[in-house]
Amino acid sequence: MTPQEVNAALRAQGWVLASAESCTGGLIAGAVTDVPGSSDVFDRGFVTYSNAAKAEMLGVDMALIEAHGAVSEQVARAMAHGALTYSAADIAVSVTGIAGPGGSEHKPEGRVCFGLAMRGHDAQVETVDFGALGRPVVRMRSVTHALDLVAQAVAASAP
Amino acid sequence: MTPQEVNAALRAQGWVLASAESCTGGLIAGAVTDVPGSSDVFDRGFVTYSNAAKAEMLGVDMALIEAHGAVSEQVARAMAHGALTYSAADIAVSVTGIAGPGGSEHKPEGRVCFGLAMRGHDAQVETVDFGALGRPVVRMRSVTHALDLVAQAVAASAP
Repeated sequence: MTPQEVNAALRAQGWVLASAESCTGGLIAGAVTDVPGSSDVFDRGFVTYSNAAKAEMLGVDMALIEAHGAVSEQVARAMAHGALTYSAADIAVSVTGIAGPGGSEHKPEGRVCFGLAMRGHDAQVETVDFGALGRPVVRMRSVTHALDLVAQAVAASAP
Repeated sequence: MTPQEVNAALRAQGWVLASAESCTGGLIAGAVTDVPGSSDVFDRGFVTYSNAAKAEMLGVDMALIEAHGAVSEQVARAMAHGALTYSAADIAVSVTGIAGPGGSEHKPEGRVCFGLAMRGHDAQVETVDFGALGRPVVRMRSVTHALDLVAQAVAASAP
């Protein structure tokens, strides 16, 4: 899904997006705001690169990070939930992963966890193993996947 | 200045960066974190696209925004100051501008205000009129200019 299509989908629904990013480092927000007029559909982005940032900006429990690692569906869920809590958005997407090079936390390079939260619904999570494609490719595919998740959720919520 | 050079400059000084972005929408954070190992030198980014986000995430006074407009040196200064206040970073850079198409707030397309804050110093501000070069070009030049400001400040602070 292109940033233009995501902007259009959000606009059609009258929805506003927030993002919570770790391994993509702001590139989801950067992609969505590449489209003129995106201020109508994008409120804010949390680039929570450090664990302290995840806790302080999004209210992610440090015990959750210690128990499951920063790259986990549990943390992705908490990040998406936090982005909704600490914004005016209708929908929030989160990404935490290992862009590489190299794995960490006993997890493989290229593993990325996504979260999606909408008001009035439980947050959904998903893990994708992109593989060791290199840092730029993993990051860009993660951005595209996050945009797809948002667009699908918006479309599924259309009356 | 390339993201690699900025990472190296921060690392040499043992400093950590935070970003506060409006018109660049996360692309400064995205550039800095494009470099492997950037978690040592980048703490978090605030993508404060809406005015509410500037106020809530960075403590920018809404009266300041109403008096001077979101694209102003006053707001850029407050954003950089807020990024330092609400992070563990040693240095913070902020960007607020009119990427276009079209001007706003009676200000020309391509005008971008930058702020730079370091602990123990007053925040510095600067306005650049990039001109109507188109949204992607203004955004990318703003990212490069912000990285230049950070690298220069780090270099000037080296013992």
